[in-house]
Amino acid sequence: MRTTRGWVSHGTTELRRAELRRRELRADDVAVRIDYCGVCHSDLHAVHAHDPDSSVPLVPGHEFTGTVTEVGRDVRNLAVGDAVAVGNIVDACLACDMCRAGQENFCRAFPTLTYGGVDRRDGTPTSGAFAREYVVREGFAYRLPRGLDPAAAAPLMCAGVTVWEPLRALGVGPGTRIAVIGLGGLGHLAVKLAVALGAETTVVSRSADKADDARRLGAQHLIVSTDEAAMTGARGQFDVVLDTIAVAHDLAPYLALLALDGELSLLGYLGQVSVETTDLLIGRKKLSSGGSGGRTRTAELLEFCAERGVVADIELLPSSRAGESLERLARGDVRYRFVLDMSDLDAGPAPVVPVRG
Amino acid sequence: MRTTRGWVSHGTTELRRAELRRRELRADDVAVRIDYCGVCHSDLHAVHAHDPDSSVPLVPGHEFTGTVTEVGRDVRNLAVGDAVAVGNIVDACLACDMCRAGQENFCRAFPTLTYGGVDRRDGTPTSGAFAREYVVREGFAYRLPRGLDPAAAAPLMCAGVTVWEPLRALGVGPGTRIAVIGLGGLGHLAVKLAVALGAETTVVSRSADKADDARRLGAQHLIVSTDEAAMTGARGQFDVVLDTIAVAHDLAPYLALLALDGELSLLGYLGQVSVETTDLLIGRKKLSSGGSGGRTRTAELLEFCAERGVVADIELLPSSRAGESLERLARGDVRYRFVLDMSDLDAGPAPVVPVRG
Repeated sequence: MRTTRGWVSHGTTELRRAELRRRELRADDVAVRIDYCGVCHSDLHAVHAHDPDSSVPLVPGHEFTGTVTEVGRDVRNLAVGDAVAVGNIVDACLACDMCRAGQENFCRAFPTLTYGGVDRRDGTPTSGAFAREYVVREGFAYRLPRGLDPAAAAPLMCAGVTVWEPLRALGVGPGTRIAVIGLGGLGHLAVKLAVALGAETTVVSRSADKADDARRLGAQHLIVSTDEAAMTGARGQFDVVLDTIAVAHDLAPYLALLALDGELSLLGYLGQVSVETTDLLIGRKKLSSGGSGGRTRTAELLEFCAERGVVADIELLPSSRAGESLERLARGDVRYRFVLDMSDLDAGPAPVVPVRG
Repeated sequence: MRTTRGWVSHGTTELRRAELRRRELRADDVAVRIDYCGVCHSDLHAVHAHDPDSSVPLVPGHEFTGTVTEVGRDVRNLAVGDAVAVGNIVDACLACDMCRAGQENFCRAFPTLTYGGVDRRDGTPTSGAFAREYVVREGFAYRLPRGLDPAAAAPLMCAGVTVWEPLRALGVGPGTRIAVIGLGGLGHLAVKLAVALGAETTVVSRSADKADDARRLGAQHLIVSTDEAAMTGARGQFDVVLDTIAVAHDLAPYLALLALDGELSLLGYLGQVSVETTDLLIGRKKLSSGGSGGRTRTAELLEFCAERGVVADIELLPSSRAGESLERLARGDVRYRFVLDMSDLDAGPAPVVPVRG
C-alpha cells in the first residue's frame, strides 16, 4: 500500500489534511502526481450528502491534471514524466455495448467513479483527487496535449466533457443556434466550445451583469431570463438549449426557446424533473440529460481544446483553501471554476493520523 | 347558415341527436358529406371535460372521411364528388415558421381545431364530425386515395398521423428496432406503419392475450410488461419507443428499453410527467411527445397507406351508437378503433330543437 496526502471531509466543507492510502500499482496502472484539481458542483453535493459517521472519509476531486511518476509493467501508452489528465471515471467493464460504443460513462455494469465508487477488482472504496497522488488504470488517464495550461485544463475533464458530449451528439456547428442557460462552470465552457465549433451562441442568464463576460467568452447574444419580453421574443429560436442550472427549476420557459425538433439537454441538475407534455409536443421538442463523458469524446475534447486554445476560466487556489472554494461555489461566487494547486501538500510534516482512503 | 344533423353532448356520453348549423361556404371552403368518423380517446376526454351548463354544446369527432358536395368559388383542387378525409385541424395561420415548415399542428397562432376550437375568421366555435356535414377550408381536406376503404381510413386522420409523425421524424425504417407500448387505437396503427416501413417491431403490452393480434399486425415480438425478466432482458434494445398509453404512468421502465441515443415519444397521454434525470442521462436518451400532424405528413401518410394497404382495424357502428362507443372506449373494449357510419342520420324526421353548433 502506498500513501499520499490529501483533504478529507466528514460531511462538512471543513476539510482536514490527512494521509491517504493508494493501492500498489497493478500491471496496467499508472501513478500520477496530481498537480491541479478542479472543484465541481458534484463535489459540493458529495460533501453535503456524506454521512459524517461513515467509516470511509470522503476525499472529493474528479477532474485533475498531473504527471506520471510510475507505471505498471504492462503499461504501453504512457511513460514516467508524461503530462496526463483524469476525469470522473477511472474504470468500466469495457465489454458491454456502451463501453464498446466508447461510452464508458454509461457502462451497463456501472463505471467506477474517481471517488465514492468501488474498485472493480479489489472492492475497496475509491477516494478522490483533492490529494497529491492518484493511482489509475492506464486507459483512463488521457495524455494532456502540449499547449494546454495544466491548471486551466483540469476542469475540461468533468465540466468540459459534460458539455462536449451533447455538443457533439447534437452535431452543433456552423448554422446551429444554441442557447446556454446559466453562465457558471459548465455554462462558460459550453459557450467557449459552442463558439469554437462555429455555432451562433446565446447566453441566457438571470442577471445582466454577465453580459461583458458572455461577450468575452465569444457569445453573440445575451438574454436576461427575467426579461419577459426578451424571453418571449426568443421563443422558438434555438436548435439546442444546454441547461446548466444546478438546482431544480421550471423547464417550461427554456423549452419554449426551442425551434421545431429542438433539444434541451439538462446538464447541471440531477433529480426528478416534471414537464407538461404539451411543452414538448408543440414543436416536437426533446428533453435529454447529460453528465460526464466516454473515453472517445474525452480524448477528442482534449485535442480540440489544444488546437483551438480552449480552457476554463479559473481561479487558482492552494489546496489548503479547498473548503473555502466549496463554500464560495455554494454561493455562486466563482468565475468560473476553482482549481486547486496541490503542491502545498508537499510542505510541512506528514499528518499524524493515517486515514483509510 | 346551413343546417345538418349530428350528435351533441352536454357533458355525458348520452349523446342527443340535434340539428346543427354550419357556415355558408366561403370562397375557399368545401362542404363534405361525412360518411365515416372515428372515435378518438380525445373525444372521450372532451366529453368528460365539457361543462354541461355551457351554452355551446359539444359535438365530438375529428377524424372523418366523406364526399365533397359543394365547393366555394375559389376552390381549385377539389370538386363535387371527390372522396376526402379531414383530421383534427381545419385551419391555421399558414404564415408562421411552423406552418411554413408544414407543421400546421404547431401553428404559432394555434391551429383551429375541428371541434372545441374557434373559427379564425368569424370567431364562432367549431363543432365536430359526429354529424352528417362539415364545412372546411379546402386546404385542410385531403384527397382520399383510391383503394383505401373510407371507413377504415378515417382513423388515419388522427390516430394514424399521430404515430406517423414520430415514425418519420425519427427516420424509422429497415434496421430500426422499435417498441410500441400499448396496443390500442394508436398502438395498432403504430405497429402496422412501423412494420410497413421495414422496422423490427415489438409490442409491449400488459397482457399476453394480445400476442396473436400483435403477430397478425406484423410485429415480430411481444413483451408482456408485467414480466419483469422479459422487461429486464429487453433493456437497452430499442432505438425508438412509441408510448401510446392513455393514462398517467411511470416512464422509467420504458425509458430503460432505449439504446444509446434512443428516443421515447409520448403519444397517448397529455399532462404532467415526471422523470428522473438519470433515467435520461444513462444512454443519452431523449423524451418527446406528439399528437396529430401537419399537412405535409398527413398527405404523405394517406399516400403511403394506399400504396401499402394500411388502414385501421375497426368496429363499425351506426352513428346512433356513438355514446355506446365512447363508453366501451373508456373501458378499453375495442379492437382497435370505433368508426361511426353517419348515414343513419339521413333517416327519420329532422330534430325539433335546433342547436347552435
